[in-house]
Amino acid sequence: MENFIFKNETKIIFGKDTENGVGKEILKYGKKVLFHYGAGSIKKTGLYEKVLKSLKESGITFFELGGVKPNPVVSLIRQGIKICRENDIDFILAVGGGSVIDSTKAISMGVNYKGDVWDFFEGKAKLESTLPTGVILTIPAAGSESSVVTVITNEDGLIKKGFHSSMLLPKFAILNPELTFTLPVFQIACGAADILAHTFERYFTQSENVDLTDKLCEGLIKSVIKNSRIAVSSPENYDAMAELMWASTIAHNGILGTGRIEDWTTHRLGHEISALYGITHGASLSVMFPAWMRYVYHFNTKRFAQFAERVFNINADFGDEEWLAKRGIDELTYYFKELGLPTTLSDLKIPFDKIELMAQKAIAKGPLGKFTKIQVEDAIRIYELAI
Amino acid sequence: MENFIFKNETKIIFGKDTENGVGKEILKYGKKVLFHYGAGSIKKTGLYEKVLKSLKESGITFFELGGVKPNPVVSLIRQGIKICRENDIDFILAVGGGSVIDSTKAISMGVNYKGDVWDFFEGKAKLESTLPTGVILTIPAAGSESSVVTVITNEDGLIKKGFHSSMLLPKFAILNPELTFTLPVFQIACGAADILAHTFERYFTQSENVDLTDKLCEGLIKSVIKNSRIAVSSPENYDAMAELMWASTIAHNGILGTGRIEDWTTHRLGHEISALYGITHGASLSVMFPAWMRYVYHFNTKRFAQFAERVFNINADFGDEEWLAKRGIDELTYYFKELGLPTTLSDLKIPFDKIELMAQKAIAKGPLGKFTKIQVEDAIRIYELAI
Repeated sequence: MENFIFKNETKIIFGKDTENGVGKEILKYGKKVLFHYGAGSIKKTGLYEKVLKSLKESGITFFELGGVKPNPVVSLIRQGIKICRENDIDFILAVGGGSVIDSTKAISMGVNYKGDVWDFFEGKAKLESTLPTGVILTIPAAGSESSVVTVITNEDGLIKKGFHSSMLLPKFAILNPELTFTLPVFQIACGAADILAHTFERYFTQSENVDLTDKLCEGLIKSVIKNSRIAVSSPENYDAMAELMWASTIAHNGILGTGRIEDWTTHRLGHEISALYGITHGASLSVMFPAWMRYVYHFNTKRFAQFAERVFNINADFGDEEWLAKRGIDELTYYFKELGLPTTLSDLKIPFDKIELMAQKAIAKGPLGKFTKIQVEDAIRIYELAI
Repeated sequence: MENFIFKNETKIIFGKDTENGVGKEILKYGKKVLFHYGAGSIKKTGLYEKVLKSLKESGITFFELGGVKPNPVVSLIRQGIKICRENDIDFILAVGGGSVIDSTKAISMGVNYKGDVWDFFEGKAKLESTLPTGVILTIPAAGSESSVVTVITNEDGLIKKGFHSSMLLPKFAILNPELTFTLPVFQIACGAADILAHTFERYFTQSENVDLTDKLCEGLIKSVIKNSRIAVSSPENYDAMAELMWASTIAHNGILGTGRIEDWTTHRLGHEISALYGITHGASLSVMFPAWMRYVYHFNTKRFAQFAERVFNINADFGDEEWLAKRGIDELTYYFKELGLPTTLSDLKIPFDKIELMAQKAIAKGPLGKFTKIQVEDAIRIYELAI
């Protein structure tokens, strides 16, 4: 087990009707709020009205900024920063999924910084303070509701980049599974892929003697596979959505990565697809994870064999370690397909002529990954394996 | 899944040599410290000197109070409170296991309260503030290093009582598995029983649809069983002790209980044994858990069958649900015996003539438990099953 520091201060408020207390929760931190959301689905579902009611009841002044799209863009973030500065906003509320939360985190970074917020993502500035933020989650997927990370896209050059700091942790996250009932089935499936991907980035490690977190990861993976299968066939199943929602948080609040060296190559490779073709994050991961796995498993066949045996109950008596490892990757691929997710670039219906460009962009700042080092030529091979 | 709120702010600093940074960590909260410890084993191991060095290097003034014993007593806590008041102490550092930490938490409760600290445990006072605390852990067991609970004993009447509040969470907990290398094998075994017991109190629930936390609990239980077996035969095995140490924290930081109604009957029954006979907490639990399980399993046979199947891999083809449930309890009992733990009151070599008294004391404030309600007559039967 590696040395580690773990701390996560986000207060999770989980269950039915919890969104109605949002105003009261915000009052602990601020009174002038930027209410940030996405394409407006919260207006159709009635959540928008509920939030307004709670804010008003708590005597909170607020400004609105909707319009966050998947793969949130820096132009809208700059607009949010401007609103916060001009109106002395002291708290930002994200109502939505990972994109809205990431956009919110990026706004919170930029308000007290004199330069342009993209500087942080380019490594040109050091984060010294953020505005406090809170979340009402509507999509179990990104885990951004209690993670230290934000990932945003700069339209100028189609660059998708992440930034992490414990200062980005939301003060609270309200998780009501009922708020997910209107999600399209494909979004639920993408969410499940995202949750699993966050766990895989931690699970597939070269760190030895990580038995406890191995078993916690395996438990979470099995629960997500089980409950996502239920949820895509009955999206209004509270129990299944509740499991997915809590799993989305636990998969990315840092606990499953404790004592382990994490990888994160596959996210990087997926980001390039999203940045160029606007592909939903989860869908980029259901394509890239099987490909990455096939390319790298032999750097620790035993770990992939363990994954097959413990997660998919593949009988170790039927083959050797290599067979087991491959069977596990196959099972994962079948599961993604069963969920209606793409597992190849062809499924995504995108051209293959930019593979080299994507590989170069992904590796622009040096080789990726800790499980094994991925150079440009490796990245090309992985994208090709995904064709 | 039940509605819940989860927040845990304790910063975990895990790994080799981490104790040397304790002074620097304390400086974030205070400069005048009560250094609280146990019977003095930290002087033999050299930890005492290391702490002193780090405190001095950080320019921290400190007062010492050693002498905490297993089942920490209110008289020493009162002494600690007096020292804190007289010297304007602004931070308390616990160096030891659960008893030292619980004693520390109780001191932190009493300093700003005008009455006697035992009032809180009697339900006669409301906690309004605490001194900040920090921990260097030497025994993986109680999970008190990041829990909201303290349990102390009032020698006047031999009453053992708990108090919980999020204000009791330590600011940080330093976990270096090397600091456990001098533990007697029996203490390691008691620690494992304690970790498992914290998980069982949460796992054996009547709450339905708790798949994710079920699987996380099962993973942790399996890891503790595996690594405790290694640790008792080679106590200086860093890897095994590291798994146990991190498990002790996770088992009691609240995450495994999210969305579940917890029970806590068995702890209460065990406390009475400890209070009357000074039995180590973990040993009281390895006796009382099998007995409680045998008495209550039929209130949710399915859950106990799941425990047998998933944790101990008992083959469900070999018997019905009831058989499975009982086999799981048997397996747990074998495991406790294998670890050298007592599993009966006879093993503890205590008389059986106070069973009725213990039952009455345990249920003095009304029936126990949520899995099923335990009245005085039930408690007597459970103690009798433990004979």
